[in-house]
This record gives sequence, C-alpha cells and structure tokens, in this order.
Amino acid sequence: MKIGIVGGTGDIGEGMSRRLSSRYDVILGSREADKAHTTSECTIDLLKQRGFKSSCTGVSNQEAVSAADVIILAVPFKHLESTISGLSGFEGKIVVSPVNPMEKKDFFTIVPPPEGSAALLVNKLLPGARVVTAFNTIAANRWKDLDAEIDVAVPVCSDDADAKLVIMGIVNGTSMLKAYDAGPLAVSAMIESLTPLLLNIARYNKMHDVGIKFV
Amino acid sequence: MKIGIVGGTGDIGEGMSRRLSSRYDVILGSREADKAHTTSECTIDLLKQRGFKSSCTGVSNQEAVSAADVIILAVPFKHLESTISGLSGFEGKIVVSPVNPMEKKDFFTIVPPPEGSAALLVNKLLPGARVVTAFNTIAANRWKDLDAEIDVAVPVCSDDADAKLVIMGIVNGTSMLKAYDAGPLAVSAMIESLTPLLLNIARYNKMHDVGIKFV
Repeated sequence: MKIGIVGGTGDIGEGMSRRLSSRYDVILGSREADKAHTTSECTIDLLKQRGFKSSCTGVSNQEAVSAADVIILAVPFKHLESTISGLSGFEGKIVVSPVNPMEKKDFFTIVPPPEGSAALLVNKLLPGARVVTAFNTIAANRWKDLDAEIDVAVPVCSDDADAKLVIMGIVNGTSMLKAYDAGPLAVSAMIESLTPLLLNIARYNKMHDVGIKFV
Repeated sequence: MKIGIVGGTGDIGEGMSRRLSSRYDVILGSREADKAHTTSECTIDLLKQRGFKSSCTGVSNQEAVSAADVIILAVPFKHLESTISGLSGFEGKIVVSPVNPMEKKDFFTIVPPPEGSAALLVNKLLPGARVVTAFNTIAANRWKDLDAEIDVAVPVCSDDADAKLVIMGIVNGTSMLKAYDAGPLAVSAMIESLTPLLLNIARYNKMHDVGIKFV
C-alpha cells in the first residue's frame, strides 16, 4: 500500500515516515520537493542503521496525493485549507486527518471551524474523498523516537466503514498503537478535543508527550 | 469534611456515596428526603456488611447544600439549571460539577450550553461558589461495584487553585482514582467532551464502562 504524507517534512510527518516506511511505501510530500527528498533519504538511512529496509520517496505534495492510495494530511490546522485548495486528485482515495484545530492562550483550547471539526472541514473541501480521523493525539516526539514503542490508544472515526477498517489496520500494525472504532466522522469533534486536553494535562502536571489509553 | 451530594439518589450519586462515605461525612440530598434517607441507610448497610464504618445521612437537596463543605452536583445536564435555581447557600463553598451536556442521536455527542460547558454554566448560575470540574468520566456501574477498584484518571480543573487541590485530594483518596490538574475552569469543555467519546468507544468496540488513563 502507498501512503502519501502531505506536509511530510514537518515534525509529525517526518516521525510518521520513520514508523510507517518499514511496512508501507511512504511517499513523502512537501511544498518543496527537494526538502522532501532530503527528509526521505534521512528516514531511509536512519532505518538502515537499525537494520530495517524501508521504502520512502520525497516528492511534491501534489505528487504524493497523485501517487498514494492513502493520504495523511500532516499539516497544522492554520495551513489546512490553503494546502488542500492547492491540490487535486483526492477523489476515491482515503484521506486521513490527524489535524486538531487548537490555540494556545493561557492554556490550550479547541477552536473548531464552523463545520464542527477539522475532519468535517476536510470532508466538505474534498467531496468524493473517503475521510478518516486518526492519529490525532500522538506527539511528534513519540513518532520520531524509535528507541521507544508508542503504546497508546488511537480513536478512529469515519462515515466510510471500509476506509475506517483500512486505517485501523495501519494503526494496529504501527508500533504498539491500538485502534478503537469511535463511530461516524462527526465524532471527530470529540477526538480533536482530546489533544488540547492532553497538552494541558502535560503542562499542569509536568509531564511530556502525554497519550491516552482506554480502560 | 462534609460532602453533600445533590441528586444523591441517582445512580451516580448513590455510587459516589458508597465510595466516599467510609472516609468522609456524606450528606445525600434528593428532591424527596425520604428517598435520600432510604438510600443512605442502604449505603451504610452495604458498607457494614463489608466491615467498613461509614457516615451517610439522607436529607433534602437544600439541606445537603446547607450542611456540606463540598457539594457535588450529581444531576443530569437536562435538570442542572432547574435543580440549582431551586437551591441557595452555595456562596463560598466548593461546588463540583461532574455534569456532561450530551445527547444520544445515532451516536453520543456533546451539546454544550452557550457558556461553553456545564461547569461554566454552574459558575454563572452560582456567583461566589468555588466551582471545580471532576469525576466526569466515571460510569455509575464503576462507582457502585465495590468488588472492583476504579483505576482510572480523573482530570480536574478550576479557577480556584485551593478548591482544586481539595478536590484532587478527595479524588486521590478514592479507590485507585488518580487526579490530574487540567488547568482553569475553561478546560471543562474538553473534559466534558471525553464522556460522550468514551460512550462511543464503548458502543463501537463492545466494551463496558470505559475509562481513561494518561500515559
């Protein structure tokens, strides 16, 4: 399976490429294809040093969308709409939103768009795409640090049952992540709220990169 | 310390009385004082059978508010405003909101009031009260079942630092609950969103009474 990462040279995207490229063909996209190429070479080298083969290619965001079966939107909420509107060819493809519309004031807070959530905004902007919410609460450091497994829960929601199963499979095959079906795409509003809550928990309890488990 | 439970004959309130009355003086309130009296006698009997002494008194909601140092509002969101507006004497007291404004459509969803959360509504309705959000995600069955410890995380938020510490102390002294400081009262919107998310996780993964841990 070919997984395209839009915004693949950001912290989250780069971390995802390290975890996913030993099992899947990762096509890392960026506004600057050169930068994506450099990041993909680094990922391959890093995994090679650890004795893993990997498949990672650095291209433009548009090429990543065009070539991939599954596209992960690893972009901050403030760049989500402008990034998507400059790209095409999402129809029929699975599009994963790990995006959390949040702000830091005195504390971290959720600031959803009028659609109700980042994923619902993506769903409106990309008619014909099979939108799935996943990976929202995993900190970039956890993606990147290959010395530690990521042993947390990942709630996944979508209105497309088959697309949801595909993404839950990818989640369950990545480190020690455990996927939970959270229901239809509208539940994304509650999933996206988790991330600012976890950032507040980290801040006020002197913790780092807090994740969740369901018990 | 005297803990008053408004709505103490509901499932959550009755469960709380079982867990709290061996350590604190619980004053169980209800619209019908007779019913509160019966429930409190049951709690005392149940704990006696298990070899625990307990302190539990059943009274009217108003008497519970008047007599207690800490007041827990164990009422469904739909009855929150009408219940509070019929009571007085909250000034200077710690008022705990475990209330989640939610609805079940095809799935469970959060339906916050214009103030942003149930706790922020309580804060508006009760000027002078020291409002704290806590205990939102603990299912009634977990409160009630004394055969099992409740080993979950409890995010706690408030604008009153001292009141927050008092409640975190009560949380940490109850079963195996672990309190986390989640920040100011505005974070209650994100904490209240957890409960419908957990209900969706339970429903779509065939689980029961799902709680959270922070890892």
